[in-house]
Amino acid sequence: MAESVNARKLKIAVDAMGGDYAPATVVEGALAALRESNNRFEIIFVGDEKKIKEELKKHESTGLNFSIVDAPQVIEMDDIPTIALRRKKNSSIVVGMKLHSDGEVDAFASAGNTGAVLIAATFILGRIEGISRPTIGSVLPTEAGTKSIMLDVGANVDCKPHHLLEFAIMGHIYSNMMLGQKNPKVALLNIGEEGTKGSEVILQTYRLLSESKLNFIGNVEGRDILLGKADVIVCDGFVGNIVLKFAESVLGVLKRRLRNYAVKNIFRKLTFGFLARGLRKALKEFDYQEYGGVPFLGVNGVAVIGHGSSSAVAIKNMIYRAEEMVQKKINQRIKEALKNYKLKTEV
Amino acid sequence: MAESVNARKLKIAVDAMGGDYAPATVVEGALAALRESNNRFEIIFVGDEKKIKEELKKHESTGLNFSIVDAPQVIEMDDIPTIALRRKKNSSIVVGMKLHSDGEVDAFASAGNTGAVLIAATFILGRIEGISRPTIGSVLPTEAGTKSIMLDVGANVDCKPHHLLEFAIMGHIYSNMMLGQKNPKVALLNIGEEGTKGSEVILQTYRLLSESKLNFIGNVEGRDILLGKADVIVCDGFVGNIVLKFAESVLGVLKRRLRNYAVKNIFRKLTFGFLARGLRKALKEFDYQEYGGVPFLGVNGVAVIGHGSSSAVAIKNMIYRAEEMVQKKINQRIKEALKNYKLKTEV
Repeated sequence: MAESVNARKLKIAVDAMGGDYAPATVVEGALAALRESNNRFEIIFVGDEKKIKEELKKHESTGLNFSIVDAPQVIEMDDIPTIALRRKKNSSIVVGMKLHSDGEVDAFASAGNTGAVLIAATFILGRIEGISRPTIGSVLPTEAGTKSIMLDVGANVDCKPHHLLEFAIMGHIYSNMMLGQKNPKVALLNIGEEGTKGSEVILQTYRLLSESKLNFIGNVEGRDILLGKADVIVCDGFVGNIVLKFAESVLGVLKRRLRNYAVKNIFRKLTFGFLARGLRKALKEFDYQEYGGVPFLGVNGVAVIGHGSSSAVAIKNMIYRAEEMVQKKINQRIKEALKNYKLKTEV
Repeated sequence: MAESVNARKLKIAVDAMGGDYAPATVVEGALAALRESNNRFEIIFVGDEKKIKEELKKHESTGLNFSIVDAPQVIEMDDIPTIALRRKKNSSIVVGMKLHSDGEVDAFASAGNTGAVLIAATFILGRIEGISRPTIGSVLPTEAGTKSIMLDVGANVDCKPHHLLEFAIMGHIYSNMMLGQKNPKVALLNIGEEGTKGSEVILQTYRLLSESKLNFIGNVEGRDILLGKADVIVCDGFVGNIVLKFAESVLGVLKRRLRNYAVKNIFRKLTFGFLARGLRKALKEFDYQEYGGVPFLGVNGVAVIGHGSSSAVAIKNMIYRAEEMVQKKINQRIKEALKNYKLKTEV
């Protein structure tokens, strides 16, 4: 499994059929990762072999370290996950995840149907002992220049306080190991800073987090998310998903708005042309493509999920994230943290 | 009460002490409203008389239609609402709301402690018959050029399906009467478009809304909020508040980011200078100051709430919103809608 590899090269299975522009962007991005990293790992394309080969023809791939595992069925982006997983046993998601659970690969990365990947990961890889709800986190840029992780962002709609505590612990590890925070500041997403705010679940979670050994800094509000006050932002998957999708939409809305404004006369057009590059640069880290993939934490393996509309660059970065999670033994750290961080009163 | 005035001039009580920059911005904004509207209504400043008079000295106010009601106590922005309301009976919020419930004024507008205004409105004005939970809505600009209302955005943390249905009905009226939508599209904020998504409360609400006579278009996701797919976006106050505060913060973050980028060299500085005005214009309607105030719907009266950091312009607009709500008899419409829109099967 993911944690035990050392001598041999890492093997990363990539869902060749996952994403709005698959397999084109997946093949392009994966080859770019191999080229850029000097074949630091091996990529196993999982998907419709014929289509993958057609796609490969478009690129120079001599000497690159990849192979193909045929999985002719495709789980579409709008398939209902539970049904699709039952009916499409030969889909890239099921086949890829099984390769991982069989120990054939060290990680599985997909920009496909998120729900299907989450369910497949949970049932095929199984949960880490002590984790009742695996969670999907999203990495957000902050004004402070740091990266924070918000979790859950969609895997768990109804959460109990101990689920939220588990998210906090997993987020702590991810922030520490993957985002470089020495003593990650953990916060609860709430509608006020005071510990007396929020629903009963939120109030109880506040207490649990206060009693844990995590570096719990209290509540943060919606306005604090991008400021970098917290490194780990804990919420249920309903709130997290809505905020994340809203956030992703804002940049697009603003860009289109500025463009519409700009085209209205030639002077504006010129100024806008000058600024467009600057705008892109200034906002670069607010672009989710840059980080590539979000982690699905709490399962016995490494499953990284890319955005449905991933570009080749996003796919490349998603693969790097998968590699990094294996290298840094995130799951081993989570297991240790479950013992160490729960309650201050425990030893 | 608000609904019965016609012949005489409308009277709007304004919380002179409410807001981060009160009473300065409040006095300035209110006088501007009187001047601009040619004394179309009367303004009653409620607050510390001495301080209000000092502030008035800074402006030319001859012939403007205002008076002062002394309320020497101040509920601060960070006071705990329930405690403050009990202890500060002579505060601008309590005195102003009582003026309204006594029929002395037709509306009360405040940019002060939101929690205190909501609670005072609920208990002093009372709820409209058939409304179990008054709600605070926020008016959002959309890419489609329309304005939508999202509610609740903070008054009700835990909501039951019938509360959310009430929000939908009140939002329908507000969208129709105040935002100009003939047959407002009502949607439920959810984590997917399918009717099978979300928690038990959300699923039940979906059913209730489907059975209502509202123009229910189903679920919208976080990414749809700014697109204008829906005119009325229904959610509980926990989600709504977090999304709203997040949204308010984004513009600031982007502006600061662009400015930081711009100052790094002289060429960028110049281009940015050119664009700053354009940027402001292009994003103008995304600025909450423009709309001024958000309605607190479901109480027997008109209570409009301004943003804590309201500028004089925002105060002016908040006063106009209060006037408009009285003129358009929003509460009368809500009472009628409660009868007409609940269940398709009812008559």
